[in-house]
Amino acid sequence: MPKISHKGQQMPASPIRKLTPYADKAKMHGKKVFHLNIGQPDIATPEGMLNAIKRIDFKVWAYTASEGTLSYRKKLVEYYNKLGYNISPENIIVTTGGSEAITIAMMSCLDPGDEVIIPEPFYANYNGFACQGGIEVKPILSHIENGFALPPIAEFEKLIGPNTKAIMICSPNNPTGYLYSKEELEALKDLALKHDLYLYSDEAYREFCYDGRSFTSPMHLDGLDENVIVLDTVSKRYSACGARLGCLITKNKAVIATALKFAQARLSPGMVEQIAGEAAVDTPDEYFEKVNKEYTNRRNAIVEALNHMEGVFCPNPGGAFYVVAKLPIDDADKFCQWMLESFSYNNQTVMMAPATGFYSTPGAGTDEVRLAYVLNIDDIEKAMICLDEGLKVYPGRTVSAKSLAGSHESV
Amino acid sequence: MPKISHKGQQMPASPIRKLTPYADKAKMHGKKVFHLNIGQPDIATPEGMLNAIKRIDFKVWAYTASEGTLSYRKKLVEYYNKLGYNISPENIIVTTGGSEAITIAMMSCLDPGDEVIIPEPFYANYNGFACQGGIEVKPILSHIENGFALPPIAEFEKLIGPNTKAIMICSPNNPTGYLYSKEELEALKDLALKHDLYLYSDEAYREFCYDGRSFTSPMHLDGLDENVIVLDTVSKRYSACGARLGCLITKNKAVIATALKFAQARLSPGMVEQIAGEAAVDTPDEYFEKVNKEYTNRRNAIVEALNHMEGVFCPNPGGAFYVVAKLPIDDADKFCQWMLESFSYNNQTVMMAPATGFYSTPGAGTDEVRLAYVLNIDDIEKAMICLDEGLKVYPGRTVSAKSLAGSHESV
Repeated sequence: MPKISHKGQQMPASPIRKLTPYADKAKMHGKKVFHLNIGQPDIATPEGMLNAIKRIDFKVWAYTASEGTLSYRKKLVEYYNKLGYNISPENIIVTTGGSEAITIAMMSCLDPGDEVIIPEPFYANYNGFACQGGIEVKPILSHIENGFALPPIAEFEKLIGPNTKAIMICSPNNPTGYLYSKEELEALKDLALKHDLYLYSDEAYREFCYDGRSFTSPMHLDGLDENVIVLDTVSKRYSACGARLGCLITKNKAVIATALKFAQARLSPGMVEQIAGEAAVDTPDEYFEKVNKEYTNRRNAIVEALNHMEGVFCPNPGGAFYVVAKLPIDDADKFCQWMLESFSYNNQTVMMAPATGFYSTPGAGTDEVRLAYVLNIDDIEKAMICLDEGLKVYPGRTVSAKSLAGSHESV
Repeated sequence: MPKISHKGQQMPASPIRKLTPYADKAKMHGKKVFHLNIGQPDIATPEGMLNAIKRIDFKVWAYTASEGTLSYRKKLVEYYNKLGYNISPENIIVTTGGSEAITIAMMSCLDPGDEVIIPEPFYANYNGFACQGGIEVKPILSHIENGFALPPIAEFEKLIGPNTKAIMICSPNNPTGYLYSKEELEALKDLALKHDLYLYSDEAYREFCYDGRSFTSPMHLDGLDENVIVLDTVSKRYSACGARLGCLITKNKAVIATALKFAQARLSPGMVEQIAGEAAVDTPDEYFEKVNKEYTNRRNAIVEALNHMEGVFCPNPGGAFYVVAKLPIDDADKFCQWMLESFSYNNQTVMMAPATGFYSTPGAGTDEVRLAYVLNIDDIEKAMICLDEGLKVYPGRTVSAKSLAGSHESV
């Protein structure tokens, strides 16, 4: 029998999806499972976007230009220039989801053995995309104690060597929810310019900033045009994860020309998605205001509930729809599996993503989990009761009950 | 300014799309351009498929399972088992077009430096996909004189070394239209088993077999379950290129498990496409009968017209909707560009794909072009008149007029 590749062996399984068989089994046994493990929002997709699909009137479902239709790219320019990106359609390559934007951006700029520095915890699939390209991820630990703020620039400097080609950030962050300040981005700008590095900016959660905070992109910084590559998707913005529609944006002409060659090899992004994406740009502001309010309420509920549990600490993040919480447990992977396999409360349980999958440093995040607040408040509250009860009886609990009551408030 | 990657520099530009700027310019100057350069059929997509899109009734455009919805995979099993593939949903990973099926299949089985043997001319983008993975393509020349039949197995044996991991075929073939016989596939089977190689079978054109010929897949051969990986797409079958919906099929469990990890990294194929794809399986036989008749007529028209031109030879292929023709010209790249830039007949011209892009051996195919018969008979006839007139006055013509009249009939 022919062998599979080393690359295929090294390719990590999805830490977000690997517990799915246990969840399926729990459901088969009649348990209700609250899915806080995956960033699949329950929010309705804008009607304008769905109506655009229903109204298609073409006869031939044809390829589009490899870089995306001019019509959709023009509409995207309208959207991005309202944000102050100051771009034109030539700066955009439309991709199959944010995932393809990342793989094309990586392949265009990085060779096997090249290194990309990423503050961790980070979106787990960056590891997979890097593995595909033989690229080395160099993680820099950020810490739950300060809410996962940007690590000191000196820490980056220590990692920069001849093979360092890029820095990758995601703000608001998946999995931490942390929103980088303008000052943090300015610090990264100086670093990128000093060492001639690409700065990848994953902005999937741009719309989700809370408490009056505003979003800053590296695209807003002067003098960084040749370095910044924005990686974007409609998945979260319009609750349209299944559309698989994203884009790559850069003012660096050599990168666009190179990315186009990769885009041409796979011929075309989806045609119907681009029609829907064009309609999506006209989504009224009220949609986002409503969604934002809903997520703020959910975040408040989940953060408050978590911090009221004994031995649990959860920072209050400024954006996205995730939190990373520190739990009084021996091993997040074991705990998350145990919650599905061996625990229930009122015949209910909670599915979470062990944070280990979001770290590249071995041993980091073993007592942390990521929770996506993609369920309604009522379900979140039920899920939090479940989690609290589970923590109380989990055999691998590391802090005995009552011993740490209120301790999280002092952090 | 940071540099782009070596991989990005090596990545080939699409030979099918690189002449597009010249075509755009010709159109700007008011010329009518007959597009025989790209496999974008003018055939209507089945109504059932388009109606499925118009009837969507979900509220949240959500991710699906990374391997595709069970519902769609079950429907695909129905389709494939009618063909005698004898598979179950676990043998299928749904992909974003055939392109992603190829890249995932390559990454799952081949490491950088590994070799895949492909009879040439072959689908140009195989080069791009191989470049992405650092994989070496080892071409084996097939010849226009025998209609691009399978080269002798002894030629394959010569190329097989320690890094050879796979053979890739496409039948009916893009760009030649050649349909492999059962005997040719049996010969490849023996070779794959002898050397423990994967056999990739790109079956994008399975439905397009003419003159009563029947399609054989390596899936029909006994004892090859661990070696065969089928790469498929709905693009051509249902004239739905813009759907970006394909799949990878294999009975090799290690390959499926590995492919799933790559599929998980990019989360999900398109949701709406899978709904449409499910409906497409119920397309009535009459649709295919009508399409097949139409393509047969077009092929007859284009092959006959080409072989009536002085100094031109075109085999009569058994499938797909392409022909490769040998023209009395110095350089196909120059000629195809010249047709767009410097020639017109009744203010019309023809866009073709230079065959050089489909060969990996330098210098091969310099006097050949690929023509896709994706226009109606009337346009094909006009295009052929244009081509004939162009050939008569092309400055790089290698055979003087009348000297070879009728020569093609003797081949």
